[in-house]
Amino acid sequence: MTEIGSLDAFLDAVRRSIDAALDRVLPQPPACPALLSEAMRYSVFAGGKRLRPCLTLAAADAVERAAGGAAGSAPPAALDDLGAAAGLALPAACAIELIHTYSLIHDDLPAMDNDTLRRGRPTLHVVYGDGIAILAGDALQAEAFALLAREPAGADPALAARKLRALAIIAEAARAIGLVGGQTLDLQAGGQAPGRPLALDADGVQDMHARKTGALIRAAAASGALMAGGSEAAVAAVDRYAAHLGLAFQIVDDILDVEGSAAELGKTAGKDASGSKPTYPALFGLDRSRALAAESIDRAKQALAESGLEHGWLGAIADWVLSRRS
Amino acid sequence: MTEIGSLDAFLDAVRRSIDAALDRVLPQPPACPALLSEAMRYSVFAGGKRLRPCLTLAAADAVERAAGGAAGSAPPAALDDLGAAAGLALPAACAIELIHTYSLIHDDLPAMDNDTLRRGRPTLHVVYGDGIAILAGDALQAEAFALLAREPAGADPALAARKLRALAIIAEAARAIGLVGGQTLDLQAGGQAPGRPLALDADGVQDMHARKTGALIRAAAASGALMAGGSEAAVAAVDRYAAHLGLAFQIVDDILDVEGSAAELGKTAGKDASGSKPTYPALFGLDRSRALAAESIDRAKQALAESGLEHGWLGAIADWVLSRRS
Repeated sequence: MTEIGSLDAFLDAVRRSIDAALDRVLPQPPACPALLSEAMRYSVFAGGKRLRPCLTLAAADAVERAAGGAAGSAPPAALDDLGAAAGLALPAACAIELIHTYSLIHDDLPAMDNDTLRRGRPTLHVVYGDGIAILAGDALQAEAFALLAREPAGADPALAARKLRALAIIAEAARAIGLVGGQTLDLQAGGQAPGRPLALDADGVQDMHARKTGALIRAAAASGALMAGGSEAAVAAVDRYAAHLGLAFQIVDDILDVEGSAAELGKTAGKDASGSKPTYPALFGLDRSRALAAESIDRAKQALAESGLEHGWLGAIADWVLSRRS
Repeated sequence: MTEIGSLDAFLDAVRRSIDAALDRVLPQPPACPALLSEAMRYSVFAGGKRLRPCLTLAAADAVERAAGGAAGSAPPAALDDLGAAAGLALPAACAIELIHTYSLIHDDLPAMDNDTLRRGRPTLHVVYGDGIAILAGDALQAEAFALLAREPAGADPALAARKLRALAIIAEAARAIGLVGGQTLDLQAGGQAPGRPLALDADGVQDMHARKTGALIRAAAASGALMAGGSEAAVAAVDRYAAHLGLAFQIVDDILDVEGSAAELGKTAGKDASGSKPTYPALFGLDRSRALAAESIDRAKQALAESGLEHGWLGAIADWVLSRRS
């Protein structure tokens, strides 16, 4: 039985640690032009859920617990209480969040989804113009890889090799076969790219989301397990968990979009359904969509149980993804 | 005395090797949406000079020669003749070229420089629209880091650590304090960003170019020296060489822009001078600009001579940068 109170404490502790780390690593004037620094921070500190970095640190924590180095069962108050694994995984968690943020900035541009509201605030390009919004996104992607690659001089080569592998996992998710490929299919389905609008069936929609949302969620979890020293089997199990979780996350997103109001979501509700982009409720109806999301969450938890990774927060995060209202 | 004939052979061999490697690593359908793959290739294979990857492989070659593993003095016919160091440096060379290409795609967008012609062809957004152009740029940046991070399983941890350092050098150059910061200052100087247009004096212009052009040219050379196993001192010397070279490159670019015609340059000549962006000829006049470029090339070659790295192609590349007509 999941205690939601303690999951909240975990998520709060992770968010505070992530925000503090991002504040430390994001460039400041005079090294960085002030306008660019402001624009990057406007979007990075816009009050996001931080789902992806939470997954990274929860996966690192789960691997540490499974290896007997558990961080204790009491809810942690801060990253210090999360154990050594979370500290090793922190740069990967931050990198993932920066890549996620850059992708939202570019998706919101008039040349793409043309969204003017995100998390209840004007989108970046509305405030700073398209040029600076494009550049802030570009810079956030580069920052992600820079912070992950940064190493103290004379660092352990084995740890450096592990970081290079985590970086490869994250870059694979971010590239044209992953995140950017998914956004391309989304653009084509919406008729905003050259050529005839792409007609996506149920498999096509699932493929688009697996790239656009799933790839980075999987990389978030897998890179956490890897940085904590997880075995190939543990990394693969966490990756399977996250693939199912990512699918459920997207289905719930589509359901909330149909049901929600602009006030609750902080973005224009019903937008996806009003355009020509197919959604799960449009394809399967609301009831079947809810059942599909619940099935995916069951499969996600099964992947954990099969690999001895069920003692930690990953299961509770899965429940939260299914039950969230915003 | 530089034999231009043999430098041409070196540059041709490098370009063929780089183009073949880029063709191998760029994603293809069905893994990548066909439209995105086409768009990426349209810009990557647009007939660029490949100055940056040439610097990477020439720096690797120079370090190898200085260590006694010289590739011979005859002009190489292909990368195989360049020695082992060039093979080690090839992923870095490709990554640098992909980052350079992405930055050109985004700089050309209507929200930035609004250029419709590049290397004699319509720019990417003219052909594929702004949305796909933004995404192709995003994907190329991610591809750069993905190809650099990719490692065969069971690879040598020491070599992985070296790759991580090369990746850090390249990511630092690409981020907000480097490339993207330079483009931000350029946008601000041109009055295309919020707030009053930035008034750049001679130092300000030099700082903008050091970020926008210089940072990646330095990373190109330094990462090549590093991947070839160069000492800290060798990497630093190559970095100094490239800093002077980058400055000369930019001054010559400005001079050619004033003197050249659209036909010769493949882009709209005089554009920089007609906007409000300050150029070297506008600040110092043509004669003084030419002298400044020549001084920078002298300093670049001095950095090589001081470090025993003058036996190779780096010196000839410096002469070529000064004497180029396009």
